[in-house]
Amino acid sequence: MTRAQLTEKILDIKRERNWTWKQICAEIGGVSDTLIVGALLGQMKLVKPLAKKAATLFGLSEVEERMLNEVPYRGTAMPPTDPLIYRFYEMVMVNGPAWKALIEEEFGDGIMSAIDFDFHFERMPHEKGDRVKIEMSGKFLPYKYYGAEQGIPAYGYKEE
Amino acid sequence: MTRAQLTEKILDIKRERNWTWKQICAEIGGVSDTLIVGALLGQMKLVKPLAKKAATLFGLSEVEERMLNEVPYRGTAMPPTDPLIYRFYEMVMVNGPAWKALIEEEFGDGIMSAIDFDFHFERMPHEKGDRVKIEMSGKFLPYKYYGAEQGIPAYGYKEE
Amino acid sequence: MTRAQLTEKILDIKRERNWTWKQICAEIGGVSDTLIVGALLGQMKLVKPLAKKAATLFGLSEVEERMLNEVPYRGTAMPPTDPLIYRFYEMVMVNGPAWKALIEEEFGDGIMSAIDFDFHFERMPHEKGDRVKIEMSGKFLPYKYYGAEQGIPAYGYKEE
Amino acid sequence: MTRAQLTEKILDIKRERNWTWKQICAEIGGVSDTLIVGALLGQMKLVKPLAKKAATLFGLSEVEERMLNEVPYRGTAMPPTDPLIYRFYEMVMVNGPAWKALIEEEFGDGIMSAIDFDFHFERMPHEKGDRVKIEMSGKFLPYKYYGAEQGIPAYGYKEE
Amino acid sequence: MTRAQLTEKILDIKRERNWTWKQICAEIGGVSDTLIVGALLGQMKLVKPLAKKAATLFGLSEVEERMLNEVPYRGTAMPPTDPLIYRFYEMVMVNGPAWKALIEEEFGDGIMSAIDFDFHFERMPHEKGDRVKIEMSGKFLPYKYYGAEQGIPAYGYKEE
Amino acid sequence: MTRAQLTEKILDIKRERNWTWKQICAEIGGVSDTLIVGALLGQMKLVKPLAKKAATLFGLSEVEERMLNEVPYRGTAMPPTDPLIYRFYEMVMVNGPAWKALIEEEFGDGIMSAIDFDFHFERMPHEKGDRVKIEMSGKFLPYKYYGAEQGIPAYGYKEE
Amino acid sequence: MTRAQLTEKILDIKRERNWTWKQICAEIGGVSDTLIVGALLGQMKLVKPLAKKAATLFGLSEVEERMLNEVPYRGTAMPPTDPLIYRFYEMVMVNGPAWKALIEEEFGDGIMSAIDFDFHFERMPHEKGDRVKIEMSGKFLPYKYYGAEQGIPAYGYKEE
Amino acid sequence: MTRAQLTEKILDIKRERNWTWKQICAEIGGVSDTLIVGALLGQMKLVKPLAKKAATLFGLSEVEERMLNEVPYRGTAMPPTDPLIYRFYEMVMVNGPAWKALIEEEFGDGIMSAIDFDFHFERMPHEKGDRVKIEMSGKFLPYKYYGAEQGIPAYGYKEE
Amino acid sequence: MTRAQLTEKILDIKRERNWTWKQICAEIGGVSDTLIVGALLGQMKLVKPLAKKAATLFGLSEVEERMLNEVPYRGTAMPPTDPLIYRFYEMVMVNGPAWKALIEEEFGDGIMSAIDFDFHFERMPHEKGDRVKIEMSGKFLPYKYYGAEQGIPAYGYKEE
Amino acid sequence: MTRAQLTEKILDIKRERNWTWKQICAEIGGVSDTLIVGALLGQMKLVKPLAKKAATLFGLSEVEERMLNEVPYRGTAMPPTDPLIYRFYEMVMVNGPAWKALIEEEFGDGIMSAIDFDFHFERMPHEKGDRVKIEMSGKFLPYKYYGAEQGIPAYGYKEE
Repeated sequence: MTRAQLTEKILDIKRERNWTWKQICAEIGGVSDTLIVGALLGQMKLVKPLAKKAATLFGLSEVEERMLNEVPYRGTAMPPTDPLIYRFYEMVMVNGPAWKALIEEEFGDGIMSAIDFDFHFERMPHEKGDRVKIEMSGKFLPYKYYGAEQGIPAYGYKEE
Repeated sequence: MTRAQLTEKILDIKRERNWTWKQICAEIGGVSDTLIVGALLGQMKLVKPLAKKAATLFGLSEVEERMLNEVPYRGTAMPPTDPLIYRFYEMVMVNGPAWKALIEEEFGDGIMSAIDFDFHFERMPHEKGDRVKIEMSGKFLPYKYYGAEQGIPAYGYKEE
Repeated sequence: MTRAQLTEKILDIKRERNWTWKQICAEIGGVSDTLIVGALLGQMKLVKPLAKKAATLFGLSEVEERMLNEVPYRGTAMPPTDPLIYRFYEMVMVNGPAWKALIEEEFGDGIMSAIDFDFHFERMPHEKGDRVKIEMSGKFLPYKYYGAEQGIPAYGYKEE
Repeated sequence: MTRAQLTEKILDIKRERNWTWKQICAEIGGVSDTLIVGALLGQMKLVKPLAKKAATLFGLSEVEERMLNEVPYRGTAMPPTDPLIYRFYEMVMVNGPAWKALIEEEFGDGIMSAIDFDFHFERMPHEKGDRVKIEMSGKFLPYKYYGAEQGIPAYGYKEE
Repeated sequence: MTRAQLTEKILDIKRERNWTWKQICAEIGGVSDTLIVGALLGQMKLVKPLAKKAATLFGLSEVEERMLNEVPYRGTAMPPTDPLIYRFYEMVMVNGPAWKALIEEEFGDGIMSAIDFDFHFERMPHEKGDRVKIEMSGKFLPYKYYGAEQGIPAYGYKEE
Repeated sequence: MTRAQLTEKILDIKRERNWTWKQICAEIGGVSDTLIVGALLGQMKLVKPLAKKAATLFGLSEVEERMLNEVPYRGTAMPPTDPLIYRFYEMVMVNGPAWKALIEEEFGDGIMSAIDFDFHFERMPHEKGDRVKIEMSGKFLPYKYYGAEQGIPAYGYKEE
Repeated sequence: MTRAQLTEKILDIKRERNWTWKQICAEIGGVSDTLIVGALLGQMKLVKPLAKKAATLFGLSEVEERMLNEVPYRGTAMPPTDPLIYRFYEMVMVNGPAWKALIEEEFGDGIMSAIDFDFHFERMPHEKGDRVKIEMSGKFLPYKYYGAEQGIPAYGYKEE
Repeated sequence: MTRAQLTEKILDIKRERNWTWKQICAEIGGVSDTLIVGALLGQMKLVKPLAKKAATLFGLSEVEERMLNEVPYRGTAMPPTDPLIYRFYEMVMVNGPAWKALIEEEFGDGIMSAIDFDFHFERMPHEKGDRVKIEMSGKFLPYKYYGAEQGIPAYGYKEE
Repeated sequence: MTRAQLTEKILDIKRERNWTWKQICAEIGGVSDTLIVGALLGQMKLVKPLAKKAATLFGLSEVEERMLNEVPYRGTAMPPTDPLIYRFYEMVMVNGPAWKALIEEEFGDGIMSAIDFDFHFERMPHEKGDRVKIEMSGKFLPYKYYGAEQGIPAYGYKEE
Repeated sequence: MTRAQLTEKILDIKRERNWTWKQICAEIGGVSDTLIVGALLGQMKLVKPLAKKAATLFGLSEVEERMLNEVPYRGTAMPPTDPLIYRFYEMVMVNGPAWKALIEEEFGDGIMSAIDFDFHFERMPHEKGDRVKIEMSGKFLPYKYYGAEQGIPAYGYKEE
């Protein structure tokens, strides 16, 4: 069994029972919806208690439950051909250089982590048409290289 | 003169005068920093009063000022090889399918606009290491196709 | 079941019953033919009443009907290798820069939406060989970035 | 001199004199704006009388005038990274299969020409936001293969 | 059933009965061999009377016969890895610019159609080794853009 | 000096003197027009007497004449974005499999040479629009692999 | 049945019977090992008497035997990800320009055939570690273009 | 001035003065050689005191010194065509899946940071040929997603 | 049976029996964990005694045991989309040029072998978060080209 | 100065003085022609005494001489578009799998080195057309992974 086959099975069950992602996430709970849906779509791992809940909900076998608890080989085809996902890709393509300039000026040399980050979205009512509001925060990780004496950090990368 | 040559000139001046983006944005003002830096890096247009301010600040010619007011051919090379920008790309690649599922369930068929959107980031102090906090909102645009009678919307795409 | 398998099944039924797309669109009705055919080929969503009609017409199960009502992962392989589709691609490749220059001069900085747009084609008889006539209109979406005070639009992007 | 250098020169002059494309097209006239702008951007050929007018307008040398009359090596980088042009690309990517199905059913096996076609766009006022209206027509070219006796068409491709 | 599955079935039958393409083309007849073989390999459409003959020859079902009469999604993977096909690709890659220069000088701005064209090859005996002789002709299609008054051709593209 | 710079120089001279390729080929003569134009565009080598003639015609230096006599690094960017060249590419992409099947059946395993081949095109007047007529022939090269005893051909590849 | 399926079947049998390629090549014989192994892996054609021997050895059906006698669609995915094959690819990538310069100086304009060539490798014992010794020879094919009079070679390409 | 131009200048000076990287790193000091060489080649930032030392050593202007202190747009062309760098790429390509399995089993879901890591290499004498010995360590970053209550970590990702 | 199918079977068994890679490697033993896990994932060969142990452990057939002893077609899709593997790829992309400069200065022209190398990783406890510590060594292979007299090394590549 | 600029300068001098590669290699001598030509084309390093000879021959500066002694960033664009180089690429693409099977069976798991190898070609007269004869040998490098105890080779990879 591959992870893609498990995803297809889960989507078939969701369709048959006419469930929404909201209902599914409410049943499994504990972590953000992005994580739960991501795991069911094969991009994230569910920790054991949540994998158990998901297995109970979807009537999965013990082996399928373990697979939900495994770290998958992450990533999807790029560039995205789907318009909704492409718009995010375009934001990065067009605004990436400006974000880089501003974040590095504020934080020094480093990155905003895509591993230790949280993500939240909500509907923002607006008279000219509702908006999707997204909040995320990621830990800033300063670039570090250690000194000539192996293992002894000398200069940190962030300037005073 | 190409837009890339103008960007190189602006960066040379910034370096010579030892300015920060913060100082530059404070001088030009009026719109978000992302937009101002994006325009100076050749990805955005500055509206006329701001292009004038930028030209004064950098000592640009009238023709260069007009170029800042032109819509550039947007977009940068993908996939990004720079680690800071790549992390945003990775977020889209890994989380795109989950975002699609959740946004479509909440809003119906459509996209979050990458054109009518705002973006804001700030430092979020944290004891285990400061975080980059990002807030953005984009107008939701429902997919629309019109009815058999040309120009007469029949069914909207959003289900009741 | 994947969406591609549903498309293959629908095409098999169409072939067996010797139906034309015209007949199928007339049966399902309500929205433009492009939308109906696009949905049956796996690129669009059919709203519930139309998905029901399509399911009745093709004798689909309730689960298959629900799948027609789902938003698919859109997009097809590019560059198109099929000559008919390639000609449209070529129009964009050759004329894109001119369209960009003219539309931006008329409307300001922004895009013509590929989401809120309609499309109609018809045969245009011509003595030297009939022509395909296409009419489409898409909402113009001006580029917007908000001001330094978060959420407060300052300058719109369209110049006076 | 390359065609790209000529385009850069023309854009420099346009910027210096603060002309609009509308003004330029009105001066040169005779053919559609898309063609004139396309030629000045290096994707189209201007016929001799128009190349002469353009040369007079921009103060070009005789050699530069001849270059405007040459057929350029057409085509721009794909996929387009600029959002305005990408939206057209996306229309083809998402709707191509449906267009193919409908056009072939109406016209038989063949293509809509990207060579013998006209293109026109205009502003379509709309209370919820103006729309870009595009009309184009292209000659339908039926696929033809000739019979076993070389040069003797046997079956045409269009079915009765 | 997909077109690729039909092609595989046809090739299996050809192999079992030990037929040559020559024999198959002689049985189906009416159009050039390239078209018949192309259709059986899934790149062309067979008109109805020929699809019927092919179906009788290969013992195909009525549905399979209809599929042979459908326009396939054309095109194969590029660049070609097969040496025989690559040589044709190389001819275009190396000689394309010269062909473009010579054809445009003789015919004006336009293309040689890949849709309305015929193709014929034969063995040309030669003492130093036989040669493949190819003759093809394609309709020349002049580039046309219509005048400012919509639909009224002004200047044709071919210079006097 | 690079070959591309020499090509640009030659094109500048051709434009200044308002020559046609026909005139240039008539002056240089001796081999087919495709070869002469190909060499001047940087894809072919001119043999010494022809390189001398070309140098005299264009007023080139002795070093430039020698460069015309060198074998260039052949090949141009693929896929071709120019419509005229793309049509040839499309012919190979769509018809390649049929050509392969027919040529191999007639000649056995091997290729039609793209090295030892000739090419000729002419205008073919036609009431519905003139056609480009192309004739080419290439030596057939049978695939050969030699026997277990090194250098001793055992089985040829062409079946009796 | 596809050629890939036949290859998989042959490899399964080889594994079950614990045969080496040496044993297989000794049984089939007549041509070089590279050809026999290449054909069993789906990249080459076996002439009829050898296809018969291979079919007897592996217990293949008559149809499978015919498939071994067919010319396959040649070529494998590039760049090669397997280290052994990549090293050959790297040799071409790094040394290609030097080989081109030296071969063209010795032989004139043309290529070393990849069609009419033989290949042999053997173990070359060496005290610092054995070496793989490869000998190959390919027919040199001079570039030829024929003269203005169609079919009459004028200048050959090789200079005196 | 671009960063690539600064790199070229630095390499020219290094060549003229016949310096080794070892000498240069000893002069600048303070951090690991990889960092110093990386910065001089345009892939890393030098902190201010080191940029000053480098500027003194190479006789750079104040503006060039500031550029060395800027974070560059990182990344080089991939796949690497240079054999030395390709071997590292190959290690990742071949061993990546095993490293992923083993690291995730030991550390849980997450990554080894490419930002907070150190790298050291040295010559390891060996009788059969010296070896390159590499030691590196990178901080393990566990994947984190926060709970349904925004900002409140619920389950950590690492299983007990 | 393909190697990918064997990998899928092995992963299914590992999941069913709830084994860790550590347990599996301890059972098979003899070589490093990277090699054992790599072989079970289809990237490496297990020598016969280890393949036998693995077969016993997983209950594989004799044919499957032989497949584990075969050299697979190595390599995985690049660029890696999985974040853990991407970080290694990024290290090569960003630091490759510096590693090349330093290794070549120390060892002369050549490469660090990706074939004769060993790899070891371990957890390195750290108060700010544990680190992944990696040690590897690869044989340095100097670039060698032999002298004009075939087979007689003249200059070695390493300078005195 | 870049290496590409040095190559262009060397080619200009070679052209002006009308030298052949044979003459140049005879002057520089000591190593194989492939190496010398490769170095002058920017793909190889010349050891010091040879770089000195080359500098004297071409009248290069001391800095240019040092550059010839540097290891360049190797590799050229792939796939090769030049027909001569492509034929070598095609040999690898078509025959790679067979070479892999045969070499691994003879030598065990490993590669033939592209670093420690020699290459020699000569003209092989033949009545049907002369042939290019190539001999090369590369050291076989067995795949090695060391045992669980770090640095202690356990099983070699080559089976008895």
